[in-house]
Amino acid sequence: MTDGIALPDPLAPRDEAIAGFALDGTVKGVKPGASLRLDQIGAQGWALPEMPLPLAVLRTDRMRHNARWMADFARRNGLSLCPHGKTTMAPQIWALQVAEGAWGITVATSHQLQVARRFGMKRVIWANQPIGTIAVDAALGAIADPEFDLYVLADSLAVVEGLAAGAARSGHTRPLNVLLEVGAMGGRTGARTTKAALEVARAISAAPGLSLAGVEAFEGLLAETRDVDAFLDTLTATARACAAESLFGSSEILLTAGGSAFFDRIGPRLAEAGDLGLPVRRVLRSGCYVTHDSLGYEQNYRRMRKESLTLDWPVGDLRPAMEVWAHVQSIPEPGRAIITCGKRDIGFDTGWPVPLRLIRVGDKTSMPFGAFHKVTGMNDQHGYLIGPADGLLRVGDIVVLGVAHPCTTFDKWQVIPLVDEQFRITGAIRTFF
Amino acid sequence: MTDGIALPDPLAPRDEAIAGFALDGTVKGVKPGASLRLDQIGAQGWALPEMPLPLAVLRTDRMRHNARWMADFARRNGLSLCPHGKTTMAPQIWALQVAEGAWGITVATSHQLQVARRFGMKRVIWANQPIGTIAVDAALGAIADPEFDLYVLADSLAVVEGLAAGAARSGHTRPLNVLLEVGAMGGRTGARTTKAALEVARAISAAPGLSLAGVEAFEGLLAETRDVDAFLDTLTATARACAAESLFGSSEILLTAGGSAFFDRIGPRLAEAGDLGLPVRRVLRSGCYVTHDSLGYEQNYRRMRKESLTLDWPVGDLRPAMEVWAHVQSIPEPGRAIITCGKRDIGFDTGWPVPLRLIRVGDKTSMPFGAFHKVTGMNDQHGYLIGPADGLLRVGDIVVLGVAHPCTTFDKWQVIPLVDEQFRITGAIRTFF
Repeated sequence: MTDGIALPDPLAPRDEAIAGFALDGTVKGVKPGASLRLDQIGAQGWALPEMPLPLAVLRTDRMRHNARWMADFARRNGLSLCPHGKTTMAPQIWALQVAEGAWGITVATSHQLQVARRFGMKRVIWANQPIGTIAVDAALGAIADPEFDLYVLADSLAVVEGLAAGAARSGHTRPLNVLLEVGAMGGRTGARTTKAALEVARAISAAPGLSLAGVEAFEGLLAETRDVDAFLDTLTATARACAAESLFGSSEILLTAGGSAFFDRIGPRLAEAGDLGLPVRRVLRSGCYVTHDSLGYEQNYRRMRKESLTLDWPVGDLRPAMEVWAHVQSIPEPGRAIITCGKRDIGFDTGWPVPLRLIRVGDKTSMPFGAFHKVTGMNDQHGYLIGPADGLLRVGDIVVLGVAHPCTTFDKWQVIPLVDEQFRITGAIRTFF
Repeated sequence: MTDGIALPDPLAPRDEAIAGFALDGTVKGVKPGASLRLDQIGAQGWALPEMPLPLAVLRTDRMRHNARWMADFARRNGLSLCPHGKTTMAPQIWALQVAEGAWGITVATSHQLQVARRFGMKRVIWANQPIGTIAVDAALGAIADPEFDLYVLADSLAVVEGLAAGAARSGHTRPLNVLLEVGAMGGRTGARTTKAALEVARAISAAPGLSLAGVEAFEGLLAETRDVDAFLDTLTATARACAAESLFGSSEILLTAGGSAFFDRIGPRLAEAGDLGLPVRRVLRSGCYVTHDSLGYEQNYRRMRKESLTLDWPVGDLRPAMEVWAHVQSIPEPGRAIITCGKRDIGFDTGWPVPLRLIRVGDKTSMPFGAFHKVTGMNDQHGYLIGPADGLLRVGDIVVLGVAHPCTTFDKWQVIPLVDEQFRITGAIRTFF
C-alpha cells in the first residue's frame, strides 16, 4: 500500500504470548517429537503433505486478498468495516484486517473483549448485551483506557439498568457508548417493536454514564433478501425516531449490521436513514469473509453478485482460504471411504465439508474431486466420504476438504499453519477460544 | 481404597504443563484481570454463579463416583477397562480413571497418543488405523519405550503394509501389537467379511515386526441391541478363526469393543469366544461414562439397566457430572429467551442441551425447569430457550444446562473448573484438543 517502505507483516507474531507459544506433540497439528516456539515454525522447512493429518491450514495469499478485498468493498460503498473477530479469534488475523483498513473489531463476549484488549485492538463493538456484574464491569473496565473505544448493545430496560449500575460503580466520567439493538419477530436478540425500542433508547439517553451512540441489528439469520431489506428499514426508521427525540448522545451516530450472508444490502439500506442531524457512520461487521468458505458463504457471495449488480464491487472475488487435509484410512466397502477428519477437526453445523482435491503421496499432481464424491457424515474423529465405486481412492491417499463454516472450524484448532500456494508452511496463527 | 494412607488426588495437577498453565482473561472462563497458575485456582475462593458465563464445570464428586462405578462394573463382569481418552482429552481425568483401576487409556489419533505419552500413560489402545509415515512412526516411536504398551488397529492389507514398513524402518526387535478390526456393512472402519478379515490377520501374523494381538470392533454406531449382539458375535467368530490358524502372536488375546451406548453387551457377548488356546482379555473402551450426560447416554444407560437385568451392576447409577452455566441475556418475545451459550460452548451434534435449573442472582434457591422449557437452537455464541410465556425467566437469570454429548462439550474448553456440590471451585482440569 506504500512505496518504498516495508511495513511489518501484520500476520507475523509479535506478542510473546503468540510468538513464544510452545509447540510440541501435545498441540494438534504439530509433528511428534518437535519442540519449538510458534514464531519458529516458518523456518522448519515444513510443508504439506508431510505433516500430521488432519491439519487445518490457511492459504495466506488468499486470506490477504480477502482482507484487502473487503476493505476495498467497504471503502467503495461508504462503509466502515468492523469485522467480527469471533470467527477467527486470532489476533494476528485481526491485525491483518486492521492493517487493511478495518475501523475496529467486533466481539461477542467478555472473554473475546479481553482477548481484543490484550492484543492491542483499540476500537471494539461488543455486539451483544453485557449481562451480570462481571460482564458489565468488563465493559466499564475497558473504557478506563482513554485510548480504547467500546460500543455495547442493549435491547431491554433490564440491560440498561445493569449497564447504568455498572457505570455508577465505575465512577468514570466518560460515558459508555450503547447501541440500541433492534430485532425481528422470531429472531434472536433485539427490541421487536418501535415502541419497545424507543423505551430502551430513552432509558439509555436518560442514564448517567451511558450514551446512546447508534442503532444495531443482525440480519444474518434471515433467509430472504427482501426480509433483510425490510429489517434494515426497521433499523433506519428506529434511528430516525431516536433522532427526532434527540436521544443520541454521541458526536456521530453508528448504524451497524452485517454478517457475511447479505453484506451487499447493508450500505444501500442504511443510507436510507437520511439526515439524522449528526454525522452517520455505517458500519459493516462481516466476519467470515476473511477466509470465506467452500459452501455456505460461497453460495451467499454468488447470490449477492447476481442480485446487487449496481453495487461498486472490487476487482476479483472472495476466495476460500481455509482447508483441512486428511488421510483415507479405510475403504471397507466399494465407494465408501473413511477419512481421518471428524467433528473435532472441521465445522459441520451448516453442512458437511466439501471434498476439493485428491493427493496421492509420491505423486506431484493433485486431482479435483467430481460432483460424485461427498462427505455424508462425521463422528468425533472420522469422516465418511462416499463416491462411485470406481477405485479412484486408495488407503493412504490425502483428501483436501473445503470448509462449510469457518467459525466452527477455527475453534477446533489452537494453532493453524499459514501456507503459501505450494503448501509450504511459512508461519502460523494462534487462536484464543 | 486403602486404610491409613492418603493417596495423592489423581485430579490434582502435578505436571508443570498443567499445574503452571497460565490463566488470565484470554482463557475462556477466567475472570477478567485475573492472572494465576492453574494450580492456584482452588485457592481463590471462587464460586458459581460469580464467574464469567458461559462456563462449563465438572461436578467432582459425581465424576469420581462415575469413574469408580465403571471400574467396579468392569471388575464385576470380568472386563478390563480402557476408557476412551478422546472424550475428555484431560490427562488429569485419565489419571483418575487409571487410579480407579482402568487397565489402560484409548486414543484415536497420533496427536492423542502424544498427549497420553507426555502425561505418563503406560498402556494405550490406539483404536484407529495409523496412516502415513508420521502416524506409523509415532506408533513405532512409542514402543521404543520398553515400559510403554501400545495396540493399534488394521483393517486392510494396505494398513498392514504401512505398519510393517514402519517396523522395518524402526529397527525394533519388539513387535508392534496390532488388533484386527472388524466392521459392519454400512458402518465405519473394519473388515466387512470373515474372508477379508482373515487375509488381514494372516498378513499381520506374517509381517516381521508385527504381532496379531487380538480382535477389535466398535459397536457404538449401531442402533439396536440385537444388531450389537450379532456384530459382537462376528468379532468372536473372527477371533476363533484366527485362533484356528494360530495367527495370534501375543501372550494373551485382546477382544475389545465398546463405546458407552451398549457397554452392557460387551462382557456377555465377548465371553462367547470360548477357548482360544491363549488367555483372553476382554477390554471395554467406554469413554463418556466419566461425566455421563443429561441426554443421550442417560437414555442409553436407562435402556441398558432395563434390558440387562441379570448383569452384575454396581450399586448406584452413573450421574451427569458436567454442566454449562449461562445467562439469560434477552427475552425479546414472550416465551423466547436468548441465552449466552452457543455452539462454541456446548456440544450440539447429538441433540440440544437440556435446561436443568434456573438460578436468580441474589436468591439462594435454584428452581428446576419443567418439561416445557427446551433449547431449540443455537448460533455460535447464543442459545434459544423456548418455554411458556409465564414470565418465569428474567434477563440476568442463570440457566444451568445439562450436556447432550460430552465429547463435543469438552473440546470447547481449554480449562474446566472442578466444583464441589456447593459449586465452589476447588481446582481445574486442562484439556489438550
